Amino acid sequence: MSVLAAKGFVGAGVSSGLKASGGLDLALIVNRGPEIAAAAVFTTNRCLANPIIWSKQVIADGTARAIILNSGGANCYTGSQGFQTTHATAEKVAELLRDSASDVLVCSTGLIGEQLDRDKLLAGATAAHAALGVDSGESIARAIMTTDSVPKLSERHSNSGWSIGGIAKGAGMLAPGLATMLVVITTDAIVESAALDRALRAATRVSFDRLDSDGCMSTNDQVTLMASGASGVEPEESEFQALLTEICKELALKLLDDAEGASHNIHITTSGASSEDEAVEVSRSVARNNLFKAAIYGNDPNWGRILAAVGTTSATFDPYGIDVTINGVLVSANGEPAEDRSKVDLSQRKVDIVIDLNVGSATATVVTNDLTHEYVEENSAYSS
Amino acid sequence: MSVLAAKGFVGAGVSSGLKASGGLDLALIVNRGPEIAAAAVFTTNRCLANPIIWSKQVIADGTARAIILNSGGANCYTGSQGFQTTHATAEKVAELLRDSASDVLVCSTGLIGEQLDRDKLLAGATAAHAALGVDSGESIARAIMTTDSVPKLSERHSNSGWSIGGIAKGAGMLAPGLATMLVVITTDAIVESAALDRALRAATRVSFDRLDSDGCMSTNDQVTLMASGASGVEPEESEFQALLTEICKELALKLLDDAEGASHNIHITTSGASSEDEAVEVSRSVARNNLFKAAIYGNDPNWGRILAAVGTTSATFDPYGIDVTINGVLVSANGEPAEDRSKVDLSQRKVDIVIDLNVGSATATVVTNDLTHEYVEENSAYSS
Repeated sequence: MSVLAAKGFVGAGVSSGLKASGGLDLALIVNRGPEIAAAAVFTTNRCLANPIIWSKQVIADGTARAIILNSGGANCYTGSQGFQTTHATAEKVAELLRDSASDVLVCSTGLIGEQLDRDKLLAGATAAHAALGVDSGESIARAIMTTDSVPKLSERHSNSGWSIGGIAKGAGMLAPGLATMLVVITTDAIVESAALDRALRAATRVSFDRLDSDGCMSTNDQVTLMASGASGVEPEESEFQALLTEICKELALKLLDDAEGASHNIHITTSGASSEDEAVEVSRSVARNNLFKAAIYGNDPNWGRILAAVGTTSATFDPYGIDVTINGVLVSANGEPAEDRSKVDLSQRKVDIVIDLNVGSATATVVTNDLTHEYVEENSAYSS
Repeated sequence: MSVLAAKGFVGAGVSSGLKASGGLDLALIVNRGPEIAAAAVFTTNRCLANPIIWSKQVIADGTARAIILNSGGANCYTGSQGFQTTHATAEKVAELLRDSASDVLVCSTGLIGEQLDRDKLLAGATAAHAALGVDSGESIARAIMTTDSVPKLSERHSNSGWSIGGIAKGAGMLAPGLATMLVVITTDAIVESAALDRALRAATRVSFDRLDSDGCMSTNDQVTLMASGASGVEPEESEFQALLTEICKELALKLLDDAEGASHNIHITTSGASSEDEAVEVSRSVARNNLFKAAIYGNDPNWGRILAAVGTTSATFDPYGIDVTINGVLVSANGEPAEDRSKVDLSQRKVDIVIDLNVGSATATVVTNDLTHEYVEENSAYSS
């Protein structure tokens, strides 16, 4: 199930005492092969958490035997003591698996600037190793939750005999509430490291990279893809890419659905752009505009705020040649009001904004959430 | 007083019926000379309101006889009908003053995408003209208010015999609540147009441009400086620059103080930067980080969110060589926690953040507000 849906993987989610609540807080996933190809993409934040610094070294050779993930602390800005904790965790897992620490990825999520309890972490690793099995897909997804309200799982089974599945936590580049988006995807397809890396970058570019819940980028984001080859099937690159992208998009939407405090999922599509990059720039600018996001919370189809956000970008357009459609109602066309804004119904969670720049044929969608009282409440009361 | 403190200027603030409340909504300021030098800076938003398009043409020759400003509607995205309203307003003022419309600046503020009532506007211009005087500095400041809670005035009198004064409305690049920052500053010093322009750009660069209440840029922002020469004094450029910059900084802080829903004024200073531009980039990145802003609302000295925001910039620094001080307490140094965050007292409105990059000697401060329930409330309920 989920990250254990693919053959060749075992895992466990345990409680190690890092979370004050006593809930599940440590997950271990092991690739039993025969292949141990792996790829990962990391946050582009320059202030990197210790597990990110470590994992970047581990993934450099395109292989990974295992990944261990903890909630209850980000292990970021914790100095050399913090890095040693990450290192010791990888060494412990390597010792348990009789493998090398240089093939053990580490992820952490939680508050920045607090030391993790190393003893609890190492004891938790031992407990997780003892509990390894194929039925704990949901426990694993739960163990990486912070303020997520539900575990996020996804899986696909190809007709050609291979499978792919994944888990995710968080929302946006930096989640409302707690930091970090962590994703682990496993497959039993035979895919070599370089192809895994290409496929993962192509999939994240159109899924997680277009999820922008609150514009804040984490120090701990990591999306990991591991391939065991245990199905014995080597799929066409296009077939693998298609299912991987599907999984990534599904998990991204699950993050959006669970973004804390959010009351709307807003899909912002920019069409008629001169390039896909410009379409993304325009959609993202709107997605990060607090006045727009607050208006949607108030069920207010305030298209002026959309155009004001579009106007801050460097994309190619005539400012008075843009059409804006909200939930199917063309509210502004050619620099003037069009249909009456009162026709727009924003009572549903899903909102579709289409901004037609009318200069080209490129299109891109960025998804975001609204700015709500609950977002402010959650994020003003987090570390206290 | 305020924008009428300088000799040579008369003005009036009247109620023309544009505001449903019946409050003051139209201001006229006239420069009776002998000089009519003027300069203005405008929003860099590419989606420009009609009065901005008009005023850019008026200011091109460095002179302006009058400026007319209305609240109750932004006249943005109102098409050719909206532009004709702006044009007709300037023509009306010109007719009343027996001067040219090409010397009449126009500013508007309010909701985007709604037509202004042209008849009310023109009748209001006539009424304002009839009421012109030297005692209405506060009425003028009130007439441009939208959701501002207080009029914002400032003035200085030089020992060398000249004066400068100004008014402002709004908060940030795009105000919480309503759009637009509008500022008018007048002086009776003798300063020719090119010098006015230089001085205004230098002053706004370190005042209004470093006020970033909510990261949203208006379609209607305009800062106008008009000089009558009526004092007969031609000050040294440095003396003029100093008082102008003082006025701009004072008005900027008044905007910050009145930003709707805000409970903290946050001064974010980046020091030890390799250039002033990089210092501004780092401070602005923190100023726009919703998680940081929500934490300050909750009186939570969450320095991890500061460093996570710093890490998204392209400034020169060693991510683990940055010191962060909040209200005098060094909370993080060299990539590790330093003094206990519980020592930080955030109970006062003013908050001082110092981010020392430790790589150079440049410094810059950006001021912002926190992200509060009241901000969300105000901005989710505005146009409805």
